[in-house]
Amino acid sequence: MERTSYRPLRYQQLADDLAQGIRAGSLRPGDRLPSVRTLCAERGISPSTVFQAYAQLEDRGLIERRERSGFYVRRDTLLTRPALEAAVPVRRVTPVAISELVFNVLGSTRDTDVVPLGSAFPAPSLFPFEHLARSGARAMRRLKPANITGALTAGDENLRRQLRLRYALHGVTLSDDELIVTNGAMEALNLCLQAVTRPGDVVVVESPTFYASLQALERLNLKALEVSTDPAEGVNLDALEALLQRHRVAACWFMPTLQNPLGALMPDDKKRALVQLLARHQIPLIEDDVYAELYVGEHRPLPAKAFDEQGLVLHCSSFSKCLAPGYRVGWAAAGRFSSDVERLKMMSSLATSVPAQVAISDYLAEGTYDRHLRQLRRSLSSHQGEALALIQRHFPVGTRVTRPDGGYFLWVELPTGCDALDLYRTAAAQSISIAPGVLFSADRRFTHHVRLNIGHPFDERMRQAFIKVGVGAAAQLRQMRLEAVE
Amino acid sequence: MERTSYRPLRYQQLADDLAQGIRAGSLRPGDRLPSVRTLCAERGISPSTVFQAYAQLEDRGLIERRERSGFYVRRDTLLTRPALEAAVPVRRVTPVAISELVFNVLGSTRDTDVVPLGSAFPAPSLFPFEHLARSGARAMRRLKPANITGALTAGDENLRRQLRLRYALHGVTLSDDELIVTNGAMEALNLCLQAVTRPGDVVVVESPTFYASLQALERLNLKALEVSTDPAEGVNLDALEALLQRHRVAACWFMPTLQNPLGALMPDDKKRALVQLLARHQIPLIEDDVYAELYVGEHRPLPAKAFDEQGLVLHCSSFSKCLAPGYRVGWAAAGRFSSDVERLKMMSSLATSVPAQVAISDYLAEGTYDRHLRQLRRSLSSHQGEALALIQRHFPVGTRVTRPDGGYFLWVELPTGCDALDLYRTAAAQSISIAPGVLFSADRRFTHHVRLNIGHPFDERMRQAFIKVGVGAAAQLRQMRLEAVE
Repeated sequence: MERTSYRPLRYQQLADDLAQGIRAGSLRPGDRLPSVRTLCAERGISPSTVFQAYAQLEDRGLIERRERSGFYVRRDTLLTRPALEAAVPVRRVTPVAISELVFNVLGSTRDTDVVPLGSAFPAPSLFPFEHLARSGARAMRRLKPANITGALTAGDENLRRQLRLRYALHGVTLSDDELIVTNGAMEALNLCLQAVTRPGDVVVVESPTFYASLQALERLNLKALEVSTDPAEGVNLDALEALLQRHRVAACWFMPTLQNPLGALMPDDKKRALVQLLARHQIPLIEDDVYAELYVGEHRPLPAKAFDEQGLVLHCSSFSKCLAPGYRVGWAAAGRFSSDVERLKMMSSLATSVPAQVAISDYLAEGTYDRHLRQLRRSLSSHQGEALALIQRHFPVGTRVTRPDGGYFLWVELPTGCDALDLYRTAAAQSISIAPGVLFSADRRFTHHVRLNIGHPFDERMRQAFIKVGVGAAAQLRQMRLEAVE
Repeated sequence: MERTSYRPLRYQQLADDLAQGIRAGSLRPGDRLPSVRTLCAERGISPSTVFQAYAQLEDRGLIERRERSGFYVRRDTLLTRPALEAAVPVRRVTPVAISELVFNVLGSTRDTDVVPLGSAFPAPSLFPFEHLARSGARAMRRLKPANITGALTAGDENLRRQLRLRYALHGVTLSDDELIVTNGAMEALNLCLQAVTRPGDVVVVESPTFYASLQALERLNLKALEVSTDPAEGVNLDALEALLQRHRVAACWFMPTLQNPLGALMPDDKKRALVQLLARHQIPLIEDDVYAELYVGEHRPLPAKAFDEQGLVLHCSSFSKCLAPGYRVGWAAAGRFSSDVERLKMMSSLATSVPAQVAISDYLAEGTYDRHLRQLRRSLSSHQGEALALIQRHFPVGTRVTRPDGGYFLWVELPTGCDALDLYRTAAAQSISIAPGVLFSADRRFTHHVRLNIGHPFDERMRQAFIKVGVGAAAQLRQMRLEAVE
């Protein structure tokens, strides 16, 4: 692996520091950023480093350049995080039945003629498939037949070693036998959920939550309890503690880093507090970490797993969002539940496909993964800038939107009176898919919210699609006002 | 696909006809086979064709050559099928808890220093891995990124088309949307089982049955009901009908072709009758068909699915036993339950790994699959001949053994008084694994039975292992007699 890549580049370090200042409030909307000369003198860096950092912050939509005057923190508070307040979930245990709707919505994103704003996946052009194919070819030729037929349920040894090393470089120590390679993160999450629950149990999920967690709960006859989740910093720990005191909870299923759909990023201290809170109650945390490598900065944020001292965190991730969609290579580091998860895996799918595992293992050994990740993050960050500008310009007044520090989703709260499900139908008729908010809640809240995918190149078709969705929402409001007058 | 390969070779046709005669009793133990001259004249074939057919039957252990006298049906009735009578299952519904034992036993087969008579897998040297790697490399280079990220839950279109075509050539018509590619047959079977049951339901399995079905039942909190199963012709339909009248049964999980562990092969008529019986009761049949391509003859036997008129047969199979172990490519043709199975797949693992699917699809398109299968069947058949000879020579008097028409398992019934679990421990101490019979029953019957894997080349180590197991069983009996005297 390419060790040097973990030292942040100078411009990246500067950009991260400034972004942090903006977020913390030490640089406020409208503030002028330090001049290039000042920064060069202060930090002992070159002007081009400063320009690179400013260009990135501009891409990220945090600052703007004013002709002959310098760079300023953007004023459009509409877009400043947290733009959204946490929704207050209905405080009751909900049996889950979301699948039918999810299948209908997702079915429409499959059609290549449809602009995939509702899709869960980023564009294929963002991934190094040719490189992976070469790696796969080489690795398969080298592989001894005995290694293929003897494939362990826990997965290819080389791949597991590389994963452990990568976690170690990011400051997370995984024990030798706790890592199990799975058929994507989806299998990992499902196995972990089954390992720590029995039918009828209650599981706490975020609000809004990723619909796949609701589907998994439904499949295993579990009940969902939603916890208030801040669009900036994730699960509200006070609210969580209150729930734990009132309900018998079997597990929590959270996405502490770049949560889907909010993009919320729980700070390290809060992750530690979450792990400690759950440890006090001896409740397992299923951590879905699939978006962490899409964090816009140089270093992926620490997972909650990093703070796990009791083996209660079942950490799940995959290469599907950051390197190799379609390869279906994910993993679980399931702490004290590892042997249970391995047995469930053995009983339900035996082992993970070998060709995909060795292709990725060979690719990782080449040391270009971090270069790919930097490029991927840059692309997604620039898409985010474009999308936010379009939303600001074309969506109705009163629209609020997240501005996550990575990933490829925006969570849009349309003005009250908009109907996202109706908007979904209107968009579908225009060959555009969107993901209506009701998908992200067991009790079908978020009726005027949509999740938009920005993981696709911003060509004209994409721009027009954003505009059409905005126009559609505005038309709904106009119609509502007309009806009110009548 | 290589269409011509489905016309049986002449010698194969002759061998099949003669084997059928032996099985049906028109040729009896000790009978002399027709002379080469007679057969050439009768059939208009060449002497070399007759010799090839006789050589194969000799390999299969059905006939023997006597010096200067010709070929004779073997007399060793010990080995004549059905050597075993169907065990009478305890007639009660059994909660399943077999996993612990299975994990312990299977754990030992992983070690390459252990002779894998207890393994569920054949030797890697039997499979065309280099060829598959070349196919995989070529297919991955050709694949468009959009086909990778857009991988359907149902699987790669080309692969599914080839599978449908292959079934069609064997006389089984699958509808366009009923085929779902899975992470091995194991996932297919588990998804099908979940699609047709709810926790607490009763599922009928064979007796003895493949332990993975018991594990799947355990995982889904289902109950097993075992049905009497003939070592030659599979499930006893009268016994099954009686069970269906007395119990509320949610599904049957059977392996009608080359059942694991018995090797039983249900004749076509009986398969039809089974499907009709279940249709009358509207009970779904989960058909595990993974060994069908290992049938010793030229044509794979028809699956029960071929007789399914109501979409009640959920047919599952894979390439793991016949072409590509470790690739984890299987499938389900789940009839009227197809969309349920697809949804469960989407919820639990999303899709099947693309590299393995396109590698196999490319390999199939080359048209050498049937040539590989013929070679594989020949190898397994010759292993079976060797193994049966060793058992006959070295196992205690009173031992009975199956002689299946394909596959790579022998089911051995040791004389009463032998303890297979104890024999398993003795063998393990000699670095030999065997699969004790108790693994194959929810209520731990088959205490003096073992399943032996003959899917590995018969080198000296393998021969010695068979001898040691036989000697171990004999020692148990001697010990028992000594204790009786004392």
